[in-house]
Parts: sequence; structure tokens; C-alpha cells
Amino acid sequence: MRILVLGGDGYLGWPTSMHFAAEGHDVLAVDNYLRRTIAQQTDSEALIPTPNLKKRAERFEAESGYEVDVEIGDCTNYRFMERIFKEFQPETVVHYAEQPSAPYSMMGFEEGKKTINNNLNATFNVIQAVKEHAPDCHIVKLGTMGEYGTPDIDIPEGWIEIEHNGRSDEFLFPRQTGSLYHTTKIMDTDLLWYYVRTFDLKVTDLMQGPVYGLSTPQADLHEDLSPNFHYDDIFGTAVNRFLVQAVAGVPLTVYGEGGQIRGYLNLNDTLQCVELAADNPVEPGDLRILNQYTETFSVNELAEQIQSVGNDMGLDVDIQHIDNPRDEPEDHYYNPTNTGLLELGLEPHYMTDEVVEGMLERVLEHEERIDEDKILPRVSWND
Amino acid sequence: MRILVLGGDGYLGWPTSMHFAAEGHDVLAVDNYLRRTIAQQTDSEALIPTPNLKKRAERFEAESGYEVDVEIGDCTNYRFMERIFKEFQPETVVHYAEQPSAPYSMMGFEEGKKTINNNLNATFNVIQAVKEHAPDCHIVKLGTMGEYGTPDIDIPEGWIEIEHNGRSDEFLFPRQTGSLYHTTKIMDTDLLWYYVRTFDLKVTDLMQGPVYGLSTPQADLHEDLSPNFHYDDIFGTAVNRFLVQAVAGVPLTVYGEGGQIRGYLNLNDTLQCVELAADNPVEPGDLRILNQYTETFSVNELAEQIQSVGNDMGLDVDIQHIDNPRDEPEDHYYNPTNTGLLELGLEPHYMTDEVVEGMLERVLEHEERIDEDKILPRVSWND
Repeated sequence: MRILVLGGDGYLGWPTSMHFAAEGHDVLAVDNYLRRTIAQQTDSEALIPTPNLKKRAERFEAESGYEVDVEIGDCTNYRFMERIFKEFQPETVVHYAEQPSAPYSMMGFEEGKKTINNNLNATFNVIQAVKEHAPDCHIVKLGTMGEYGTPDIDIPEGWIEIEHNGRSDEFLFPRQTGSLYHTTKIMDTDLLWYYVRTFDLKVTDLMQGPVYGLSTPQADLHEDLSPNFHYDDIFGTAVNRFLVQAVAGVPLTVYGEGGQIRGYLNLNDTLQCVELAADNPVEPGDLRILNQYTETFSVNELAEQIQSVGNDMGLDVDIQHIDNPRDEPEDHYYNPTNTGLLELGLEPHYMTDEVVEGMLERVLEHEERIDEDKILPRVSWND
Repeated sequence: MRILVLGGDGYLGWPTSMHFAAEGHDVLAVDNYLRRTIAQQTDSEALIPTPNLKKRAERFEAESGYEVDVEIGDCTNYRFMERIFKEFQPETVVHYAEQPSAPYSMMGFEEGKKTINNNLNATFNVIQAVKEHAPDCHIVKLGTMGEYGTPDIDIPEGWIEIEHNGRSDEFLFPRQTGSLYHTTKIMDTDLLWYYVRTFDLKVTDLMQGPVYGLSTPQADLHEDLSPNFHYDDIFGTAVNRFLVQAVAGVPLTVYGEGGQIRGYLNLNDTLQCVELAADNPVEPGDLRILNQYTETFSVNELAEQIQSVGNDMGLDVDIQHIDNPRDEPEDHYYNPTNTGLLELGLEPHYMTDEVVEGMLERVLEHEERIDEDKILPRVSWND
């Protein structure tokens, strides 16, 4: 299959590109290094240095014999996107090409504007390029579980039948998020759904929870092939922040009460999910929404597990609650569904103590590079 | 009250500016002539020539003694918007500054991109300018009934309580539209709602149906003060198209079956509604959604009324069904609610035969300027 990976330099994009190449697909990875640029501008560089995308692809070919083609360019530039689609004629496009940081989107006017314009224009360009130049191409779009927020009712997979005054109809589940970044993902879904039903595009929107992990069969071939590991307040997840804090000997900083529940998944399961989506395309005119996570737990549970495993490894791990820089419920109902990907064949890798230990060992290898100034929140939603 | 009208040169913006000025308010009307530019580019000029905004304001002051201040500039330019908000310190901002044509948004890539970027950036700039420079300012945003589309259940005013698996929660009504333009209005609402609940802004989102009419107390003072009357396929409404076709002696062109039902209102009622919203601001943190129309009827009913009145006036009016260039249901359930504005005091002006006769007479005065090439659809959703 010809698979185009937009955002191919990202935490998910690079492992996805290697994974599909190792499965024998023709892979073209596209990126403009927006994340690297923002990381540099906000002093949020990743813990483990990663070569640029072309160098990574060269290293990957040398180690594995598999090829990932690379194009450096901006997905918000339609002339560039048109050329890519015309020349490569993808059968599947995996669209990760978005500004992915919620705190960055809340920093100020320019960062918010960049987030809106980058994400909406990249998605609009993907839609238009498929419509004009590759109408049979299946769009696999990375959404986020954050689009749903934390409603007080069960979260289905994308769609809900609503009964009202004795009649009923089916709708996109009404979504309500916790940041401007997440709001742009809601907009993406609305945009895709409009073009799907009007122009018979084929789209799978993967509502993904926070992903953790650094080890994949391909990434493990060489240190240069490592996924990006961000532990900073801009691109880092709670998992990564806690891992680094455990290693650095500073308390794990739980935002607020720590009752925030999310659906998590292992990086290897992201690769499985995206592959399952690509291998099972939808019919023209269908928007399939799949909730992409394997288990839910609270921030407190996450901190306690990392504390427990860390202490067993001889680290001295404390937990500290700090003011929540975000505007989000800290004690809420959360009951999403995730059967769609399991039915397609997903075999989950859970966050076992062994998995946590493996991540801590990996961070320990780079302990000397930890910069504690990057860890604590520098962006507050309401200030 | 200091009232800032963004999009002050538009069909609604100019009458709104005159109306508030005549009520004794300080009015600043802002526009960048985007609609005039697009009208020229698409050969869609209005039937009645209108002087530019500065000239209209001069004429209005000469005729009425009331002043409308004018600034020509682009609401997607934040430096411009910041200056306006800092200098004028509006207590109410009426935000009409959007690309308002559904057919234009569907013409092609550039037109679609312009619609997304103009509408989202203008709305984001309004939000940011209020948040930074006029936090008590009440935002009165023009939405559209088109955001709801035509669901098979009753349409409430913005919010719906959803019961699901034995629990319930309140949500923004899940919206699903018929064009890219309408999709940008859904995005606007999501953007406003995020900033309202996170930063305690005050917003009223007016979900308006198609507006008709040329006569208001201020517009009637002088021909130069006329609202824009578009009968073309880009900016024209079905009402205006039928009025012009009746006068031109060509059949009224109903798109498809003609069973499309919408909620209509008189231009004078738009002025009332916007004034009622401005006079009754919401509390900080509230997004009030009001459905702004006074009566519903189908395209067939509309055509038949204009045919009947036209024939009584001695015109020879036929009706012809043509292929629908849009992708929309032509026979559907439609039961929206509109009690909110009535409870605030709206006194509706309905589309009586006398009102239709008045509009036909006005078009007859400009019969020689009718260009039939502008009337038939030049943009098809699916071609």
C-alpha cells in the first residue's frame, strides 16, 4: 500500500512511518519540523536527541533495509500538498500534521492563532488534495479523546442517538474540550464530516488518549531511531513528567486533586490501531470514529504506580499536588467505550509495572540531560 | 452605549449601525469591503448601487443628524482590531464580519480557504480583543439557523439535555450543516463557547434564518442609505431571487422539490433582535443562544406567495423547479423553537402580501438594472 504519513517527524509519525515500512508498504513521511521549532522557541527540547527526519530515515534503512521516503514541507501550503498527492498517489494518508500542544495553544494570541491556522488549514488541505487528486484515498486522521471532554454521561464512539420530545435522530456526539488545541480538533472533525457526507470521502477519525512508551521493534534497532521523548510542560504528558521527576529525585507534580481520568495506550498499540484502520478502510461517504485507548486511570493512580515501581528500583519518589494550571474538572464521571478497535483485532499492551520499569530505565540512561526548569507548568489557562 | 459593529457595510451591518445611532448610541462601523470585493470578482453586484461606507455615513448624518463613525480595516488583522478595541472601548460588539455566502465557500479551494480563514480569524480576534482590552464587553455574534441543519428532532435554542444509558447531561445541540460556510459558523460557536466558559466572556450567539426586506425607518430616508440587495446566486437569498425573477418576467427557480423549510425574518426584526440582545447582556461566563426568526415556510410556499402577489400586481409569474445545486434534504422535518427573543420583547413583522408587494415595487424601480445572467446557479456543490 502507498501510505503518506503527514507529521512524519512526530512522536507518533516517526514510529508509524517505520512500522508501515517494515510491513512492506511504500511510505512517504512529510514534516515541516513545526514541533521542533516550537520546542526550541519554548525551551522544551526532548530528553533524547533525535536526528532530523532525513537522517533518521537513512539510519533506519541502514539498520533494517527498509526505506522511508522523506519530504520536508508545510502541509498548510496547498501547492506543496498538491504535488505530494499528485506524485505519490497515496492509498492511505495518516494525518498527524497538527500543532499538538494544549499549553502552547493557551500561551497567548500568536500561539493560539498559529494553532487554529495550522490545524484547520492542514486538515482542509488534506481534504482538498484527496478530493481533487486521490479520491479513493482513505484518510486516517488523528483526533483526540479530549474532543469529548469529561461529560457526565457515557462516551460512545463518535455517534449518539438522541431522543427528544418523542422523536429521535443520530448525531455526532456533542463535544466540549479543555483547551484551544482540543477545540481545533473538534473543528477538524466537523470539517471532515462535512466533506465526507458531501463528497463521499473515506475517513477514519481516531480519538486517541495519551500515549506512552519509547520502545517499538523498529525504534529499538538504534538510539537514533528513538521516538521523541518530551517531559516539559509544553509537549510532555503526565506520564513522561512523572518518569523524569522520579529519576531526577523531585516530587511527581500532580495537577490539582489528581482525579482527572483519561484513556491511555502504549505506543505499540497506536501502531496497531493505525494499521488496523488502514487495513480496514471505510466505504465512501463514511466517517468512522474509533476511540483509541486501552485502559483508563486517574492521574493519582498513574503517579502512585510510578512511585511504587520507582521505589522498588531504589529511587526515592514523592508525590506533590500543585495548583492546576489548566481549567478542567479534577473529580468527574468518565466512562468511554473502546470496542471498535478491539473488534478490528487490537491486542492491548497494558501499562504493567514491567513497562513502567522499562521506561524508567530508559530515562535513567539520559539522567544527566534532565533540565528541571522545563518540568513545572509555565503556562496557566486563567492568568 | 458604545456599540462596535463589525461588518458595518453589510446587508445587516449598515441598517444595524444606523438603527443604533438613531437610538442615541455611539456607533463605530468597521468593514474591509470583503463582500463588495467578492461581489465584483464573481459578477454579483447588488441591484441597487450603494455608496461606500464613509459616503453612506455622511449621507446618513446629513439626512438624520445622527453620526455613524467609520473605520475601514480588516478584522482578521489583530493589530487593527486591538487599536479599535483600545480606542473605542465598546460595551457591545456586534460581530457580522464574516464571509457570508455558502455558494462562494463551495466554489473551489481558494474560496473555501478564504472562508475558513476569514471567519475563524475574525472571530478569534474579537475574542482576544475583548479578553485583553474590553473584558466587560458583550459580544453579540451573528450565527445562523443553518448551523443546526435539518435534524429529525425538534431544534431547541442552542442547548439540549441528553439522556443516555440512565444518566444525563446538558450539551450544545449537535450541529450539522449544508455548506463549508455554515460549518465555519459551527466552529465559531465552539470557539466562543470555549472562551466563554474558560475566561468568563459574555456572548450572545444569534442563530438567524434568512432575512428579507429593504425598508427600515433610517434606510427609507434616502436611496443612498438602502441596504444591499443581492439577487445573484452568490449573495442572494431565495426571497430576493424570486422577487427579481417575478419582475424580470422569468420563472421563479425553485431548487429541487422546494420542500426546504427555513425560519425567516424581516430586516426590521433583525434590528429589534440585535437591540434586545444588546439591551439585555448576559452574565460573565454565559453563552446565550437565541434562534432568530419569526416564521417558517418552505421554498414552495415562498414561491407561491410571491407568484400570487406578483400576478395581482399585473406581473406574469411562473414557477419552475430546477436541479438543486446544493446538497440538502428537500423534504424534511423542521420544528425549531424561537421563544427566547419573543420573551425579551420581540414584536414580529411577518411576510404579509403587503410586505411582498412593497419589495416587488422596490425591485420594479430598478428593473432596468436586472442582469439575468446573475440569477441562475453558477456553483454546484457536487460537480
